[in-house]
Amino acid sequence: MSELLATYVLTHREDEQIDRKAEQIALGLTVGSWTDLPQLKKEQLKKHKGRVVSVKDQSPANGGLYQSEVTIAYPEANFSADIPAVLTTIFGKLSLDGKVKLVDIEFSERFKRCLPGPVFGIEGIRKKVGVFDRPLLMSIFKGVIGRDMEDLKEQLRLQALGGVDFIKDDEILFESPLAPFEDRIKEGKKILKETYEETGHRTLYAVNLTGRTFDLKDRARKAAELGADALLFNVFAYGLDVMQSLAEDPEIPLPIMAHPAVSGAMTSSPDYGFSHSLLLGKLNRYAGADLSLFPSPYGSVALPKKDAMGIFEACVKEDTVQQTFPVPSAGIHPGMVPILIKDFGLDHVINAGGGIHGHPRGAIGGGKAFRSIIDAVVKKESIEEKASTCQDLQAALDLWGRVAE
Amino acid sequence: MSELLATYVLTHREDEQIDRKAEQIALGLTVGSWTDLPQLKKEQLKKHKGRVVSVKDQSPANGGLYQSEVTIAYPEANFSADIPAVLTTIFGKLSLDGKVKLVDIEFSERFKRCLPGPVFGIEGIRKKVGVFDRPLLMSIFKGVIGRDMEDLKEQLRLQALGGVDFIKDDEILFESPLAPFEDRIKEGKKILKETYEETGHRTLYAVNLTGRTFDLKDRARKAAELGADALLFNVFAYGLDVMQSLAEDPEIPLPIMAHPAVSGAMTSSPDYGFSHSLLLGKLNRYAGADLSLFPSPYGSVALPKKDAMGIFEACVKEDTVQQTFPVPSAGIHPGMVPILIKDFGLDHVINAGGGIHGHPRGAIGGGKAFRSIIDAVVKKESIEEKASTCQDLQAALDLWGRVAE
Repeated sequence: MSELLATYVLTHREDEQIDRKAEQIALGLTVGSWTDLPQLKKEQLKKHKGRVVSVKDQSPANGGLYQSEVTIAYPEANFSADIPAVLTTIFGKLSLDGKVKLVDIEFSERFKRCLPGPVFGIEGIRKKVGVFDRPLLMSIFKGVIGRDMEDLKEQLRLQALGGVDFIKDDEILFESPLAPFEDRIKEGKKILKETYEETGHRTLYAVNLTGRTFDLKDRARKAAELGADALLFNVFAYGLDVMQSLAEDPEIPLPIMAHPAVSGAMTSSPDYGFSHSLLLGKLNRYAGADLSLFPSPYGSVALPKKDAMGIFEACVKEDTVQQTFPVPSAGIHPGMVPILIKDFGLDHVINAGGGIHGHPRGAIGGGKAFRSIIDAVVKKESIEEKASTCQDLQAALDLWGRVAE
Repeated sequence: MSELLATYVLTHREDEQIDRKAEQIALGLTVGSWTDLPQLKKEQLKKHKGRVVSVKDQSPANGGLYQSEVTIAYPEANFSADIPAVLTTIFGKLSLDGKVKLVDIEFSERFKRCLPGPVFGIEGIRKKVGVFDRPLLMSIFKGVIGRDMEDLKEQLRLQALGGVDFIKDDEILFESPLAPFEDRIKEGKKILKETYEETGHRTLYAVNLTGRTFDLKDRARKAAELGADALLFNVFAYGLDVMQSLAEDPEIPLPIMAHPAVSGAMTSSPDYGFSHSLLLGKLNRYAGADLSLFPSPYGSVALPKKDAMGIFEACVKEDTVQQTFPVPSAGIHPGMVPILIKDFGLDHVINAGGGIHGHPRGAIGGGKAFRSIIDAVVKKESIEEKASTCQDLQAALDLWGRVAE
């Protein structure tokens, strides 16, 4: 009998009986009641009954309260093999019932076979980009609202000439007559072909897949037909199950870059919602995100380090599905590259907006500064020496400084 | 130029400059920057620039912090006319940026025309049920996991015989070989036809629409074909936009009962996420929920009264779209009817699980007790006198007592 394990953190008063609460969850979210049932019913319902796996010692929390970690096993016979059914079972009613945070889900091997995981993953993305020995570099369009195609094309060209591997749409760029989705793909492709011919470096462009849910597959198929490189997707404005369907569709053979927009509403509270590692790491990965963006521990919109590292680990740890490329983001500048590589290793994507566009020599200088310091750190060269031979890096370090490792 | 207004509550230190933060939001989530732009760009971008509408005086919050209410106007030219685009714009990155809670959205008249609102609404539901002068009564299957069709049919029959107007599936009942979706509709229909012939009272059954997102429309159309009465839908395990598409589909002419499962992850924190009234009230209503379930202020899983009343008001207040039937739920028993009617008036649905099934004379007695006390309160009769002529009501009051108004 296959089970799914859900782990919660309950925040509670010292005198609350957490063992009892755990039993109530295990029964209330499965067979409803137990002790009063006649023996025959018990036999029938046995394989549907939830059980308490563990209740871990409580630790003090804010406001004189305590936190306990509770793990419940749910028989998979109780729900269909889809994420909405899982979430409704293990965190439907329970999400409304006091201070409870869902921090982890352990899927059975059987359930995992129903989840696609990343179709490309780190390995597939690296093959597409043709870069295997360093973190990838991504840059973001800036100030896209109200700008026309000419403006976006010029931004794309400059970013690519700086040597970035990926360029992503801003997540708030939607379908607009100024720069329609299909035009962005077609025109973007032309520009990136030109820059490739000029520099020999290949840059991929992730176009923002937006609109009504039931139109997304058609739009994504059209994007694939037009030769798009990858899709940016605001998965938490839609739903994990929607992303899963995009990943599973053989007519949409495109990497999916999951953006964390709106997810803060579900992860930020210490007492409620989902843990960062579960939502932006594990669930994104199982549901098919090839890349997962999340706030880094250092930048302008920063996550506590343990949360950022938790997402990272959930993206890359050994599993039956491929790895999701972790993309710690927000406020990243070249002086952060040493600590990024120290914390996230070679298999992550360095993602910058202001740290590219705000460079004194513009986006080209920004890209070059990043590429230069990435090379130095990977080759364990002196950053000072590297900067002395690369004006763009020197200018970046002069402007933003270095973040201590 | 049409604008959408978003109101946030920011929780912050006393010395934080909220005026400045508000300006950063208004620019950062629209045109990006302003003061440094050349005049020509300013002219071009003017109609895309967000603006601060108001910053309300801060009030003290927990932990020595303060809360301020900030309203920002976003030009609708910036996003497509769908809820994912709205949420990504106004609460995408911002949801990740410190203690900020989205408490209200004011849609423009133009944007509202893109949202369906309830297709049936309170008026349409009343017509279907044929009851116009009292709150409706709904009961919930109990202990459904692992039960077969015979069990569910018997539960349905007993609940209907008690005189309830609506019976809803448990939200954790998914597609299962024991009680398949289509069988539940077909068999349920037969049972409710029989009870109607027996009692003359019509009871509707809301079947749980579950499964993969991209299969939902087909399943819902099939439900309509089979003569289903209504759909229960775990909208927050999917997405508001998905519910909107169900509501808009002319081939799915069924009332939608929005269940709050998983929504607690987004509403429970005082500092993060969405306000209850926005998510379970206003957004549910605009996105097409004919009924919205939410925890009542009195029961086993209780909401603070102001939050429950906020949802209620958002469901029923005067607007261009129809009204959503408010369904305050969880732990409701007959002794709560006077306060329910005092707080929520005649236009709400009284929804009970344990308060029906846990009655000493079973679900029939439970239903009758509820119907009896509802009649007494509506007709302003003495509850004691009513109980003296209705054993079922007396038994319920003896068991659960009365909640003071």
